[in-house]
Amino acid sequence: MLSPLLQNLIQALRVLPGVGPKSAQRMAFYLLQRNVDGGKQLSEVLADALENIGQCQQCHTLTEADLCGICSNPRRDQSVLCVVGSPADLLAIEQSGSYQGLYFQLTGHLSPIDGIGPEEIGIDALMELVARKPVEEVILANNPTVEGEATAYYIANLLAEQSIKLTRIAHGIPMGGELEYVDGGTLTHAFNGRQQFK
Amino acid sequence: MLSPLLQNLIQALRVLPGVGPKSAQRMAFYLLQRNVDGGKQLSEVLADALENIGQCQQCHTLTEADLCGICSNPRRDQSVLCVVGSPADLLAIEQSGSYQGLYFQLTGHLSPIDGIGPEEIGIDALMELVARKPVEEVILANNPTVEGEATAYYIANLLAEQSIKLTRIAHGIPMGGELEYVDGGTLTHAFNGRQQFK
Repeated sequence: MLSPLLQNLIQALRVLPGVGPKSAQRMAFYLLQRNVDGGKQLSEVLADALENIGQCQQCHTLTEADLCGICSNPRRDQSVLCVVGSPADLLAIEQSGSYQGLYFQLTGHLSPIDGIGPEEIGIDALMELVARKPVEEVILANNPTVEGEATAYYIANLLAEQSIKLTRIAHGIPMGGELEYVDGGTLTHAFNGRQQFK
Repeated sequence: MLSPLLQNLIQALRVLPGVGPKSAQRMAFYLLQRNVDGGKQLSEVLADALENIGQCQQCHTLTEADLCGICSNPRRDQSVLCVVGSPADLLAIEQSGSYQGLYFQLTGHLSPIDGIGPEEIGIDALMELVARKPVEEVILANNPTVEGEATAYYIANLLAEQSIKLTRIAHGIPMGGELEYVDGGTLTHAFNGRQQFK
């Protein structure tokens, strides 16, 4: 009942995360009926981005240049390196404006059960970078999930014998959070990580 | 902090209905990191669809052919014409399998306040079709919203003097619905439209 090309379009839109059959149908009708220009631009930019965006040679984040804007910025603190698990995590830290050093972006986290080992996520490239750069502190900002914690421990083990300060971002009660609704694991972290009141 | 091309891609994805900044970011990262092939296919199919899909010459629904699969099917009942407001409505009726006649798809509904009059939604083309074809019954399946009802009344007025049976799809309690949770307007329709118990 739908024309073959329209069916193809709805099917193609379903590759997008979080888009099921009904949303894909709505998107297809919207682009064809109401926003042909926006759709054309999406098609062109998407082809361009998939063709040209690759990894930053230094920090492995997504960029169309050889070096990303952060790695090529001489005003960033070259002595601190923050390890993150995804471009979204890197972006969240940048948007907070609280960090001025460099990054290294892993491709996810260790997950031996899925066949994802140290080389798959780029830990060897991280080690090379640490050896090559005058890094004084490595901040492990992996997600506080089982895989993230395992990855952080793995990296910490590799770096343990070098004279580099190793830190982990603090876990505790989020700002604006209410103790009543915070889970036990987070409360435990918050108590263990308590600091002198200033 | 994001590369310009990546920012363009995130911006371009936001033309999709229901996609905000966070979803667009997630989609961009997903396509670039995990599903480059799916992204390329989406870009190609989207360009192809926007280039080639237009209106069916007879019923105005979306198709890449001159006549859609329904209008070109000789086994459909040529004497009944169902008027719908969008391709999604047409698809929903087709999927129910309850209708074997032809369709005419309006481009939305009358909305004088937005400058959308009879010609903008294709009512003149509907009148031409009714005059040209041996139509015996026109079923008004416009949405039961203020605009949909107004559009149905407008079409009914235009067709009133012709010897064509005019019907409106029934409004009432949806199957599986509970009276307790049904709004007053629907209940009123359900009582006014009550039928002889068989």
